[in-house]
Amino acid sequence: MALAAAGDEPRRSAKWVARRDAIIDTSAGLFARRGYHATGLTELCAANGLGKGALYHYIGSKEELLAAIHDRVMDEVMLGADRVAVAGGAPSAQLAMLGDELLDVIHRYPDHVWVFLHEFPALTGERAEQFRTRRREYERRVETVLRAGVRAGEFRDLDPRLTALAWLGMHNYTYLWLKAGGPLTARDVAKPFADIFLSGISAPEAQGAE
Amino acid sequence: MALAAAGDEPRRSAKWVARRDAIIDTSAGLFARRGYHATGLTELCAANGLGKGALYHYIGSKEELLAAIHDRVMDEVMLGADRVAVAGGAPSAQLAMLGDELLDVIHRYPDHVWVFLHEFPALTGERAEQFRTRRREYERRVETVLRAGVRAGEFRDLDPRLTALAWLGMHNYTYLWLKAGGPLTARDVAKPFADIFLSGISAPEAQGAE
Repeated sequence: MALAAAGDEPRRSAKWVARRDAIIDTSAGLFARRGYHATGLTELCAANGLGKGALYHYIGSKEELLAAIHDRVMDEVMLGADRVAVAGGAPSAQLAMLGDELLDVIHRYPDHVWVFLHEFPALTGERAEQFRTRRREYERRVETVLRAGVRAGEFRDLDPRLTALAWLGMHNYTYLWLKAGGPLTARDVAKPFADIFLSGISAPEAQGAE
Repeated sequence: MALAAAGDEPRRSAKWVARRDAIIDTSAGLFARRGYHATGLTELCAANGLGKGALYHYIGSKEELLAAIHDRVMDEVMLGADRVAVAGGAPSAQLAMLGDELLDVIHRYPDHVWVFLHEFPALTGERAEQFRTRRREYERRVETVLRAGVRAGEFRDLDPRLTALAWLGMHNYTYLWLKAGGPLTARDVAKPFADIFLSGISAPEAQGAE
């Protein structure tokens, strides 16, 4: 996925890609602790055990690294959304699955999510555009499920955009307190959140049917 | 409030306090655009039209400024929560009012909210402790209303902490898209959000009663 984003990059080996992913993950931790702007190339090299030339071989610039941190999370988020679309089923079940998938990613990548939610204004030009496009694409998946639920009579008549923003806020904001190794699993949170949200938007005649 | 927080500061005139608030607001805008760490004392002085000595007279340090940005928003958020507690009434009405009040503050202070949500790890010692205490105090207000609703039979049996976190996420996350001067007022958002959340947690027998 990262290679596709790079466009004119040559095809790389699986080993190269794995090493690049490891660099992205280590750097995400560093940015999360110290801040993107405050972290210099020297610290990135030290944390990754690489010289500047070697780091450049994997990641062309600090901004590319920031974009890669976002892509790494969004690749997984979109794969989850694809699984939900393929599984199909009732819109209520699809929305619950989207929540499961999203919280699972946030739970596994707290540093990455912290970094791109806080530092995305540092992205410029095409990278900023791609960031917005990918986020909007995911938001549309949520809106699509909401619209399908209204059409099917499962959800009451609602504003799909505003309702998607409510759902996204409720789930995304967990990045501040839902951590791998913490007392709560992603599933511990996804289930009660789905209960609240689905009851919150269900059509009056559908209530109590869950 | 800021003066009370400063502890041993002498009592200041209303004019002094108003000037200090203006400095806090201007600096919040600067931090939101450029980042807390990347903004130097020289830029803060230029933006506020003050020399370093004069700036120091109002704000003792950059970290104090960050804490003051948080306090300025939290003072308003807690005043809103106090109004709700004084108004009383059904827990469902109180939760809707809390949402109205919170979104009104987020809508009016987007820069402040951006800055303290992103930069709070820069607070140290007593200031970090006070930040956590004040946030926890507000979270407890939400939990208290939820517990009261369960006791009154208005809300179903729920986990007050996790439900408060869901509610807070849904509302707080609006700081990314709900802006003063934008197409939506705070009320445009607070009403549908309350509809979702209250239906989402209402006791089965209470549903349809709203």
